[in-house]
Amino acid sequence: MDYANESLKRHYDWGGKIEIASRVPLENRDDLAFAYTPGVAQPCLEIQKDVGESYRLTRRSNLIAVVTDGTAVLGLGDIGPEAAMPVMEGKCALFKAFGGVDAVPICVRSKRVKDIVETVRLIAGSFGGINLEDISAPRCFEVEKRLKARCDIPIFHDDQHGTAIVVLAALTNALKLARKRLEDARVVVSGAGAAGIATVRLLVSLGLEDAVLCDSHGAIYEGRGGLSYEKAEMARATNRRMAKGGLADALVGADAFIGLSVPGCVSQDMLSRMGKDAIVFALANPVPEILPDLAKEAGVAIVGTGRSDYANQINNALAFPGVFRGALDVRASDVNDEMKVAAARAIASYVPDGSLAPDFIVPDVMDRGVAAAVGDAVARAARDSGVARLQ
Amino acid sequence: MDYANESLKRHYDWGGKIEIASRVPLENRDDLAFAYTPGVAQPCLEIQKDVGESYRLTRRSNLIAVVTDGTAVLGLGDIGPEAAMPVMEGKCALFKAFGGVDAVPICVRSKRVKDIVETVRLIAGSFGGINLEDISAPRCFEVEKRLKARCDIPIFHDDQHGTAIVVLAALTNALKLARKRLEDARVVVSGAGAAGIATVRLLVSLGLEDAVLCDSHGAIYEGRGGLSYEKAEMARATNRRMAKGGLADALVGADAFIGLSVPGCVSQDMLSRMGKDAIVFALANPVPEILPDLAKEAGVAIVGTGRSDYANQINNALAFPGVFRGALDVRASDVNDEMKVAAARAIASYVPDGSLAPDFIVPDVMDRGVAAAVGDAVARAARDSGVARLQ
Repeated sequence: MDYANESLKRHYDWGGKIEIASRVPLENRDDLAFAYTPGVAQPCLEIQKDVGESYRLTRRSNLIAVVTDGTAVLGLGDIGPEAAMPVMEGKCALFKAFGGVDAVPICVRSKRVKDIVETVRLIAGSFGGINLEDISAPRCFEVEKRLKARCDIPIFHDDQHGTAIVVLAALTNALKLARKRLEDARVVVSGAGAAGIATVRLLVSLGLEDAVLCDSHGAIYEGRGGLSYEKAEMARATNRRMAKGGLADALVGADAFIGLSVPGCVSQDMLSRMGKDAIVFALANPVPEILPDLAKEAGVAIVGTGRSDYANQINNALAFPGVFRGALDVRASDVNDEMKVAAARAIASYVPDGSLAPDFIVPDVMDRGVAAAVGDAVARAARDSGVARLQ
Repeated sequence: MDYANESLKRHYDWGGKIEIASRVPLENRDDLAFAYTPGVAQPCLEIQKDVGESYRLTRRSNLIAVVTDGTAVLGLGDIGPEAAMPVMEGKCALFKAFGGVDAVPICVRSKRVKDIVETVRLIAGSFGGINLEDISAPRCFEVEKRLKARCDIPIFHDDQHGTAIVVLAALTNALKLARKRLEDARVVVSGAGAAGIATVRLLVSLGLEDAVLCDSHGAIYEGRGGLSYEKAEMARATNRRMAKGGLADALVGADAFIGLSVPGCVSQDMLSRMGKDAIVFALANPVPEILPDLAKEAGVAIVGTGRSDYANQINNALAFPGVFRGALDVRASDVNDEMKVAAARAIASYVPDGSLAPDFIVPDVMDRGVAAAVGDAVARAARDSGVARLQ
């Protein structure tokens, strides 16, 4: 189907994918006196006495902002803040539909880390959480780090951690099918942007020993010149074999390829030289690194993409609604690694063992039960790891 | 009725007065592919080519932010950003219910003009307009001035201009009943904050010659020591008789008293010395300068307050939904004086001549037709004054 033109037409028809709805009656003067002046003074005074009451007396307990600067939007790159807003609105619609989370899209008209951090910090009192979105690497790392230090609400960069969560979930089930253990697997990740680095970090933290992260210059290894702060950190944490070639070399004998990069960076030829029962996640969006049919022709056993029009849609939509559902439910101060791993495990185990198959390694993105299961697991992990402010 | 405690109870029950609603179907994978990835790339690219398309392809054409720093909330003063949010949410609920305008409440955790201006400037691409709210004077003047200079969307400080509009509307009808002309009237305004100064400015711009603005030190006159920039400007524009006493002196023989200050600043004794067919607008909120019954006992002919539990509710809710309805409908770049005056005239003339009476000088705040009438008038004035970007 011609998604592009049909989507454009629908966007013109919709005139915006979200709107505000009132939760209060406003039919008569009494309604007005309770919801607005003079009655509203009393809830204001309660919050003045205890700012925590803002979670009970306003929508804050269920409200997040989806914040972007428009620098790394889908596969389109730096298209500008306003141009990123259709993605942000779509995300907000999904937050509500799947997680029951109220989300407001906000674009920031600056690419400066300081500006983005200050803006979000200054408006953070309006929200119960912040979902950072489509901010390019390496600025996104600094933005997230500074905001986590300065805000008392959970900060979650979905391109990093949402992706890491769904990849971990899909890889867990794919390795189970291939009867391999993460500790023994050889995993090649293409793309050393926000998603690639966060995914490798999470997998390594869980015991993956043989990881090779590739950027456009090939494998990242310790001592390679001109590495950014994060890539240098990855060089230290991965690639113990000191592989130095291009992606094609790294893939020889690999158990899994995780593409978080650009369309066309792998060929059938390259994939055919992977190991037995090879796993390929071609997650570039909207056009994957390689189409599933071609990957299978090349002998790959399990293929996933980020798209809704193929099997195994490894899409962040499986993670982010539930992550914030859980974080908001216990008023978490952070989304930590324990919560991310809990989210991934909840997604993976949502596919019943009896149903697990090469074409069914992750739940259907449209399954409304996933976010609830993820939310419960994330809330529990927040409590267990001490970042829940409600029990 | 005990509005305070009942309102508090209801706020706890509501858990927020607004929420986000999705405007798109999200039932199957195709829905997802159109509203989100991969289809959403196309609307993004259209906005990248022409940022103006953001008004057609996102909710921007109907979406504003209600922004506060929490420094001048109702009659409560500087209670902090989070504590102001129940008022902001109430305002957003009213924007939707009366004007069909989607409004998002945002509080800024800083009192510095520079911080507030930068925050709003940087997020302005997300919205079609900005309603500033409950920011204390004199910072509010500077915030509004700088934002008007730096943003391409309408900036409207409701405490100033919403109040000025409804006071002008009410005064127009009250003077009509008293068979007096604005040009000949003696008007005393108590309160030289945001509302008082904006109201006097607007009335003087329309021909009021005998205006005396009083602050807590009494009448403001040219040469009085220690005046702020705005008060000095008011001193030059008003009080040609150079009245120098307190509010009690200023009120002797006055045709109208407009209270935008604090409860209890006028007594029955003071009001009894006003001119024939005296008009008193006691608009301090939530407790007026004097209760209507006491004012009438003192011989005042026409009394209005800001409250919903008395006749003649001179409340900004008559203005702001329609002002933004009109501004958004023609994608106005500004809310200028022509649009404010048009709004006031639309409110005043919404009361049919046959119904005009001392207890009916402004429309019922609950009348859903007011915002539409104001919106039409504001849109027309925007076109006529050259600030409309849609015809």
